[in-house]
Amino acid sequence: MATTVWTRRHVLGLADFTPAEFDTVLQTAASFREVLSTRTKKVPALQGQVVANLFFEPSTRTRSSFELAARRLSADTLNFAAGTSSLTKGETILDTAKTYLAMGADMMVIRHREAGVPHAIAAEMNQLGVRVSILNAGDGQHEHPSQGLLDLFTITSLIDFEYPRLGLLAGKKIAIVGDILHSRVARSNIWSLTSSKAEVHLAGPPTLLPKLLAQIGDSSLPNRNIFLHWELEPALKDADFVMTLRLQKERMTSHLLPSLREYHQHFGITRDRLKLCKPDVKILHPGPVNRGVEVSSDLMDDPEFSLISQQVTSGVAVRMALLYLMGSGKN
Amino acid sequence: MATTVWTRRHVLGLADFTPAEFDTVLQTAASFREVLSTRTKKVPALQGQVVANLFFEPSTRTRSSFELAARRLSADTLNFAAGTSSLTKGETILDTAKTYLAMGADMMVIRHREAGVPHAIAAEMNQLGVRVSILNAGDGQHEHPSQGLLDLFTITSLIDFEYPRLGLLAGKKIAIVGDILHSRVARSNIWSLTSSKAEVHLAGPPTLLPKLLAQIGDSSLPNRNIFLHWELEPALKDADFVMTLRLQKERMTSHLLPSLREYHQHFGITRDRLKLCKPDVKILHPGPVNRGVEVSSDLMDDPEFSLISQQVTSGVAVRMALLYLMGSGKN
Amino acid sequence: MATTVWTRRHVLGLADFTPAEFDTVLQTAASFREVLSTRTKKVPALQGQVVANLFFEPSTRTRSSFELAARRLSADTLNFAAGTSSLTKGETILDTAKTYLAMGADMMVIRHREAGVPHAIAAEMNQLGVRVSILNAGDGQHEHPSQGLLDLFTITSLIDFEYPRLGLLAGKKIAIVGDILHSRVARSNIWSLTSSKAEVHLAGPPTLLPKLLAQIGDSSLPNRNIFLHWELEPALKDADFVMTLRLQKERMTSHLLPSLREYHQHFGITRDRLKLCKPDVKILHPGPVNRGVEVSSDLMDDPEFSLISQQVTSGVAVRMALLYLMGSGKN
Repeated sequence: MATTVWTRRHVLGLADFTPAEFDTVLQTAASFREVLSTRTKKVPALQGQVVANLFFEPSTRTRSSFELAARRLSADTLNFAAGTSSLTKGETILDTAKTYLAMGADMMVIRHREAGVPHAIAAEMNQLGVRVSILNAGDGQHEHPSQGLLDLFTITSLIDFEYPRLGLLAGKKIAIVGDILHSRVARSNIWSLTSSKAEVHLAGPPTLLPKLLAQIGDSSLPNRNIFLHWELEPALKDADFVMTLRLQKERMTSHLLPSLREYHQHFGITRDRLKLCKPDVKILHPGPVNRGVEVSSDLMDDPEFSLISQQVTSGVAVRMALLYLMGSGKN
Repeated sequence: MATTVWTRRHVLGLADFTPAEFDTVLQTAASFREVLSTRTKKVPALQGQVVANLFFEPSTRTRSSFELAARRLSADTLNFAAGTSSLTKGETILDTAKTYLAMGADMMVIRHREAGVPHAIAAEMNQLGVRVSILNAGDGQHEHPSQGLLDLFTITSLIDFEYPRLGLLAGKKIAIVGDILHSRVARSNIWSLTSSKAEVHLAGPPTLLPKLLAQIGDSSLPNRNIFLHWELEPALKDADFVMTLRLQKERMTSHLLPSLREYHQHFGITRDRLKLCKPDVKILHPGPVNRGVEVSSDLMDDPEFSLISQQVTSGVAVRMALLYLMGSGKN
Repeated sequence: MATTVWTRRHVLGLADFTPAEFDTVLQTAASFREVLSTRTKKVPALQGQVVANLFFEPSTRTRSSFELAARRLSADTLNFAAGTSSLTKGETILDTAKTYLAMGADMMVIRHREAGVPHAIAAEMNQLGVRVSILNAGDGQHEHPSQGLLDLFTITSLIDFEYPRLGLLAGKKIAIVGDILHSRVARSNIWSLTSSKAEVHLAGPPTLLPKLLAQIGDSSLPNRNIFLHWELEPALKDADFVMTLRLQKERMTSHLLPSLREYHQHFGITRDRLKLCKPDVKILHPGPVNRGVEVSSDLMDDPEFSLISQQVTSGVAVRMALLYLMGSGKN
């Protein structure tokens, strides 16, 4: 397995991750999964360091996951939540970040509804010549790298629990189904999965497929094993993994989609449709799930098919790995 | 004193608590009260464990009390607050609980405005075969067991500080006054107090008395030393303890009660009315108090009569006891 | 340097601080700045103690600063935020404070939009005869002592990093510019700076200058080296430090000021205006800054002139010093 010395200060997206970097994260996360199975569940790796969670877009589950990851590395955490913040007093986002830097933050986990905000903050920090690390926890419809990595960790761990690695996906077929156009999760997953030798098949309503991809049509993209479908069936055919995406209900009202029921009829994953896939197919969803929309409710709770709760568990180990890799050598 | 080996995974209400279980909680809380009087105030009992506070109904004081209790047992805490949550994104409550389970929560402290939510979550967890513990921190108008236990701890500690126990209440008369119909605090207290040999007298406006009890009228309930009054005076007569309940102002507007002033005139506890009680009578209130409504303002601050601040202090020790008893043996 | 044994239980304002007390805070903060430069960044000074942050007026940055300061002293923190609180249930502020006292709070950091609230709480605590300490984190337009102290620490550290002390300001000219009438930061700074041998010059629109001072006119106040100006230039002339104040935009709408642009034209600090000052002049701002209003945007980011980020950094060390001084001897 090709792991590498970690040199990346910020984790803003998976688009430029090297295979060796993917493997380093996977292997580090596997080590932390072992730590989490011990009695104390903590390591002193980041003692004295401060992780600031700057969530300009609210999210309890992702913030909780990062918070727990940080504490299990013995870091201190500071939480900034939009709404109760001085943003309402007219401060810019960059100034908020600089304030937390000056307070002593060693790492900042940033979520914002606009794409590129974590990048802008990272660029500013680089220019200031400071050693703080920025971790993108979701920026608009752009990327959500820790979600992409935890999905990768979840499926590779299923194949080899001890040594999860990119190479395990060679020859696997992975379907990504749903609102790909608006999904930062899909984007991050496309980058990680196409770095392996897996075949990635995207399926969703034409209105919801990325415009970029739509121009190319139903053909493989150059250099990436990626295929595009406007119907569900060809994507599911013999799939090893089906990644469903959260349907943003607010898109419904803007008439991009007719109704939740109609969406479920065309693109919802059901037991019947699963028969198209490999017999041991597994389903993923980044959560929170709209029950009975993206996945039928009984399937979602069926441990034979659903990896949803493993994804959440993987999240803590993967986020520990990211914070650890970015934070080591800081002291 | 009859203490017992603790076998209860969840604490959802006091209705089925055995006398031995009450005594075990009281005695464990007394031990933690001693810990709280030491310099460090902490014990490593729950090191590595995660207590998730899932407050679907907001409450700063109860959440703070649980949070402090958890930290003093060296547990890590995660806070979920409705409003900033993905519930607004359509996730079900059960899915939220399962997410925190998958993240690694060992215990969940749950408050919800609907009765039965903690029970539904506990049932789901049992069915999943996982070892997580659910603690009801108030469900609708149903139960609030930690409040019932801290009230019990407060009054039994007053009689014997070293060995608080149910048996100390034999022959005591305890009045519960106010909006019993809508009070989960009253319900939990009725279960704990009638497990002792105390006499429990309920008094409140007819509109606010439980319909169940109203059918029975002013007579003792079978097997429980409980008495019902539509007027305050017979309940207060020779009482050792007077438990007042918080008046939900929102009930006023729905015309269940005429006015705050009228409520105070009929059911407010004043110095004058206290003369009906035993000379060393004590007053309790679960807080937050509407000053001058349930209790006259000066009486509330009089340490000779008021146990209100002791109740809050008891809360931390009792919640440490509950978390400890449910959490031990998990590692 | 005259440091002193600390005897002050509460820190409510700087109006009655003695020079020796200022120097004790400055010297203690300098020690903690050293701690913050070590690997672990923590000291066990307040182990077992509880710092309750009661922010009745929301503020993420100040709360985060106090929270980090408390944790680095190994204290536990509890956060109360208005809005999600039982205040909406009608509880008085004093009762909220007494609840946190009863829960075990050793110190309370209090912010409220009404002047005098922390003082009222401190008076109540004194009357109860309890050892809890109250720290004013901003009360209306009255005082914000930790901000005044961190400003003092920032400018004295610039003159002598090892031994910051009041005496270093002798002969220095300090301008305070802006909405002095509504500024608790200005008030606290006036008390600290006029305790030194510095000359303090206030400048702001006539409508925004304190009415008290306006009665006296453009002359020095008796016993305090303080001067009043209705125009910026005489205040800036040969100044060593320029303290700008946050302009409360909500004042704009109440017609106390014509427009942000007009304010900037008359009282905004620009490179051009800075030429009036000493060549090595430094600018301060308590944050959050309205970019381009109080200070021109480029100047704010220029490390040659701006002390804004040092102020934030100083904040953690100064708040550690305050919590430490008030909290020592409590165990």
